[in-house]
Amino acid sequence: MIENAKVAVVGVGNNTSALVQGINFYRSTGSLVGIHQPQLNGLGVENIDFVVAFALSEGKVGKDLHQAIFAPPNNFPRLDAELPPSGVVVRDGLTDSTGIRRVAEALEGAEVLLYSAPSGRPDIARAYAEAALLAGVAFVNTTADPIARDFSLLKRFEEAGLPLIGDDLASQFGSSVVHKTLLRLLEERGLTLVSSYQVNLGGTEDFRNLAENPASKKQSKMNALGSEKVQLAPLGYLPHLKSQKIAHLNIEAQGWAETAVSLDIRLQVHDPSGAAGVNIDLIRVAATALRSGRGGYPAEAAAHLKSPPGTSA
Amino acid sequence: MIENAKVAVVGVGNNTSALVQGINFYRSTGSLVGIHQPQLNGLGVENIDFVVAFALSEGKVGKDLHQAIFAPPNNFPRLDAELPPSGVVVRDGLTDSTGIRRVAEALEGAEVLLYSAPSGRPDIARAYAEAALLAGVAFVNTTADPIARDFSLLKRFEEAGLPLIGDDLASQFGSSVVHKTLLRLLEERGLTLVSSYQVNLGGTEDFRNLAENPASKKQSKMNALGSEKVQLAPLGYLPHLKSQKIAHLNIEAQGWAETAVSLDIRLQVHDPSGAAGVNIDLIRVAATALRSGRGGYPAEAAAHLKSPPGTSA
Amino acid sequence: MIENAKVAVVGVGNNTSALVQGINFYRSTGSLVGIHQPQLNGLGVENIDFVVAFALSEGKVGKDLHQAIFAPPNNFPRLDAELPPSGVVVRDGLTDSTGIRRVAEALEGAEVLLYSAPSGRPDIARAYAEAALLAGVAFVNTTADPIARDFSLLKRFEEAGLPLIGDDLASQFGSSVVHKTLLRLLEERGLTLVSSYQVNLGGTEDFRNLAENPASKKQSKMNALGSEKVQLAPLGYLPHLKSQKIAHLNIEAQGWAETAVSLDIRLQVHDPSGAAGVNIDLIRVAATALRSGRGGYPAEAAAHLKSPPGTSA
Amino acid sequence: MIENAKVAVVGVGNNTSALVQGINFYRSTGSLVGIHQPQLNGLGVENIDFVVAFALSEGKVGKDLHQAIFAPPNNFPRLDAELPPSGVVVRDGLTDSTGIRRVAEALEGAEVLLYSAPSGRPDIARAYAEAALLAGVAFVNTTADPIARDFSLLKRFEEAGLPLIGDDLASQFGSSVVHKTLLRLLEERGLTLVSSYQVNLGGTEDFRNLAENPASKKQSKMNALGSEKVQLAPLGYLPHLKSQKIAHLNIEAQGWAETAVSLDIRLQVHDPSGAAGVNIDLIRVAATALRSGRGGYPAEAAAHLKSPPGTSA
Repeated sequence: MIENAKVAVVGVGNNTSALVQGINFYRSTGSLVGIHQPQLNGLGVENIDFVVAFALSEGKVGKDLHQAIFAPPNNFPRLDAELPPSGVVVRDGLTDSTGIRRVAEALEGAEVLLYSAPSGRPDIARAYAEAALLAGVAFVNTTADPIARDFSLLKRFEEAGLPLIGDDLASQFGSSVVHKTLLRLLEERGLTLVSSYQVNLGGTEDFRNLAENPASKKQSKMNALGSEKVQLAPLGYLPHLKSQKIAHLNIEAQGWAETAVSLDIRLQVHDPSGAAGVNIDLIRVAATALRSGRGGYPAEAAAHLKSPPGTSA
Repeated sequence: MIENAKVAVVGVGNNTSALVQGINFYRSTGSLVGIHQPQLNGLGVENIDFVVAFALSEGKVGKDLHQAIFAPPNNFPRLDAELPPSGVVVRDGLTDSTGIRRVAEALEGAEVLLYSAPSGRPDIARAYAEAALLAGVAFVNTTADPIARDFSLLKRFEEAGLPLIGDDLASQFGSSVVHKTLLRLLEERGLTLVSSYQVNLGGTEDFRNLAENPASKKQSKMNALGSEKVQLAPLGYLPHLKSQKIAHLNIEAQGWAETAVSLDIRLQVHDPSGAAGVNIDLIRVAATALRSGRGGYPAEAAAHLKSPPGTSA
Repeated sequence: MIENAKVAVVGVGNNTSALVQGINFYRSTGSLVGIHQPQLNGLGVENIDFVVAFALSEGKVGKDLHQAIFAPPNNFPRLDAELPPSGVVVRDGLTDSTGIRRVAEALEGAEVLLYSAPSGRPDIARAYAEAALLAGVAFVNTTADPIARDFSLLKRFEEAGLPLIGDDLASQFGSSVVHKTLLRLLEERGLTLVSSYQVNLGGTEDFRNLAENPASKKQSKMNALGSEKVQLAPLGYLPHLKSQKIAHLNIEAQGWAETAVSLDIRLQVHDPSGAAGVNIDLIRVAATALRSGRGGYPAEAAAHLKSPPGTSA
Repeated sequence: MIENAKVAVVGVGNNTSALVQGINFYRSTGSLVGIHQPQLNGLGVENIDFVVAFALSEGKVGKDLHQAIFAPPNNFPRLDAELPPSGVVVRDGLTDSTGIRRVAEALEGAEVLLYSAPSGRPDIARAYAEAALLAGVAFVNTTADPIARDFSLLKRFEEAGLPLIGDDLASQFGSSVVHKTLLRLLEERGLTLVSSYQVNLGGTEDFRNLAENPASKKQSKMNALGSEKVQLAPLGYLPHLKSQKIAHLNIEAQGWAETAVSLDIRLQVHDPSGAAGVNIDLIRVAATALRSGRGGYPAEAAAHLKSPPGTSA
């Protein structure tokens, strides 16, 4: 008999909406479409229970989780599946480093804390990580804030026998992985890269934050693409796109006898779906690592993150 | 001291133009741009000498090879490098299965016969293969005609200690490899393919032939893409494109919770460059296999062909 | 008090499905989205009644029109609006030039005969036109078959005081009009066209017919684009696209000091919607011209057809 | 016998390079490719003489104009035409509003002052306009700074019998005109716009300035596109593009029965060529208006500017 993973989540934004709705969708339809790993260390996609949730905005705190995920500015679409109340009431989250103890108490019974708030507040991210340490809960940092890249923090999780995963979620299928794959293909086939660019457009609140504070994200993208010939245009926040992301990629190269090769790509995805499709795996990795007493960084998580330990902060 | 590979070529079309001009280009500039393997089994890109050439059209037969490669309908551009006469006068090629002995005699001194004529005349391809067998020369079939896929023929090459490579050259960087790579990426990331298409447009004589006789090529493409959800639009022969090829690819998939993922790609390459970039490797594989007495199919060639032995004819 | 136009239709394919469903959609929702002319000579979009319908396939003849429009191979989507039975039972259509009298009798009470069968059977098209003449009904030919371009036929409609409209419907918003508009813009701005291509991909039965018998359609496209520098790639019949059409257009030009200008366009539309959006206007033009006794070619129709009278057959 | 127009230019950037080189190119080749109006009020493209030039950077001031146009950060390519010294030595330009008299004296003999400096310094633009007024010379403002939109200034030019043209050059063929044309086409055909975006990428110094100070340019673009449903992504300064500009446009609309219509466009141009192709007309309009004593705003110029008099500043 499988025991469901017990998950606490910080941030009730689009990514949480996609994750929560998707788990319910797969549970009720039995569909396997779009699933990376139907079983991961014995846990299915449907074997996830949310037990605690934290948010900050008035429209979410105090609401049932299944209601809060539709509060503005969330704009991930409502999936076509019935969604009964969850029984989890969204709690008030941290706004600074005080309150760690309160959070730790709320985490009782949870196995994994999924940190899915907006990037750009490393102090808050770290406060939740401290609460997880205190409560004996695994921590998954999906933001670009450096948590798993902080070696002293990683060491403390390791010593406590607690898994720590991060930083900066690589989408299940986003512009970085497509770009990287095509650049690697070029190289494998012996072509010489001349130039390349990537433009990302999106309409979520997370996107707006990144567009206004591009620095940490850009470094993280660079970690993922790894070539100075690849240029990133500024993020474009276009509200009408809602939770869709559109990326325009261009690659100019030279092949045999220096003749030109051009590739233009347009990619359209639902950003929160790409996050949920990876979070579902990270949660299961974290939960099963915790259960088997493996603290620190689980190697199998690294492929899903843009800035794992050892990359530039 | 390196001994240059001695190559005979059948077909003085665009692919031969790109190969001949490119070798001269790299020799005179020292550039390494667009080269897959600068050294392959000890042979550099510049270590290729053309010693015999066969063609059919009046405008090519009897001309110096370095002049014949610019005769219409060839339309690969003239590269920016001086090209002195080669000393090789283009000979009259076969139009049916008679004349094998004549060809075999002309092959004396050659190590590799590169069969680079238009696809669609398997009888002629086979006649040249017989001539290679007779002359003790390795054979490289770049066309979609089934030669290396013919097991009895492959066995005879093997027994004679002669390498046989084919069929249907995979371009160094063409629509098939890009398409295949992205489809594989989808699968690796757990997305579910919904539909996909590929449109190829080009302006070479070879393209015109394929557009008018699509069957054998289409099977070969299907061997390369390997999914029934991928649809090929008819080839478009657009003369103004000359030796450029443009491909439009589309991929529709579903990710987490069945949300949509779309990829649109436009690829622009010089088709003959893509062929030359692979031929340069196949020639070196064939020459060095011959020198070391390895007959039959050299395993390292398979990755460069769309329909290697064992795939459908 | 507006009297609804009474329409007979030949062909119960996707275009008829889009037209019939769309009129019902606008009637029931009151929406004005996507409507070119809410009122045309006093008739609204909702002021159309279908009174007779002809088809050939077993799956359609004998069925109610509102049921027949969903029979395969039709693949235009079912719109989100309730569709009660129409009361019009689909009749058996013509398969050769006999039966004109039978059709004429069935047309009693109709004002407009919309000929919306597949292109490629000019004899059948002409037979229906003769029936319209006999019955005193206006005729709208949406196919590429030359009917309105036949001056003797046009003259007979004119003399009978009956409107005749055709040939070859220009989509409300299709690849031809987008291509033409951009080519004209180039010219207006003083750029010099170097080359251009257009690829059309679709999944309807009509598309399959055109892909297999491209000649008449191609001439009609050429009439619409009017430049020999524009090349049409062969139509690609891709069943999975269903009633969607995708067009890839490319325009290469030269501007100031002969520097390069490139335009690449991808257009995605529902082909039957593009047809219905024009048919709704042609029907209203035909009905009101008939009511006011204007026979022959109504000038206001010409803009909506690719091959109006006076262009090449 | 035609008397050449005598032109002074402020700013020796890429646009001036394209204009100066292009005039020389057309003069020496006799080509008419890419020319909007071979003759305009009797003046040909070759009937332009540069008589004075102002710049600020050390690498340009004191150099012959035909040498200065290649000084970095200029990156418009060197055209394939011989370019003998011009005899015009680039002078030191204004850095604030002082020096108007010095400029006016230098303008003696000139008929038109083409103000082609970077946007974003309205005080400097105005100082040159004052110098033109003082010297009795027509003024053409190609920047987004409000000069022709300043009614009191326009009135003074009008009273002095001097033409004043501006503001913000519409490219001969740029993203604004393509976008606007397609949006108008949608409307003409009765489709309903749902959403639209535009991303512009470029590598010139001018582009860098605009990317860093987007406000005035954005208002000007909005004047040109005129719909709140059209969203502009931030400009992307990608140095490797040099003087090329790439724009990605998307248009989502609804047609008949609210079915979806999508248009994706990729446009690639040399930005300075697009400017030169319009400047050549504005100079000729200004020169001939001056010669015939028509002061103020010449109506025929308005179509070439994004923010003519009467639009928002």
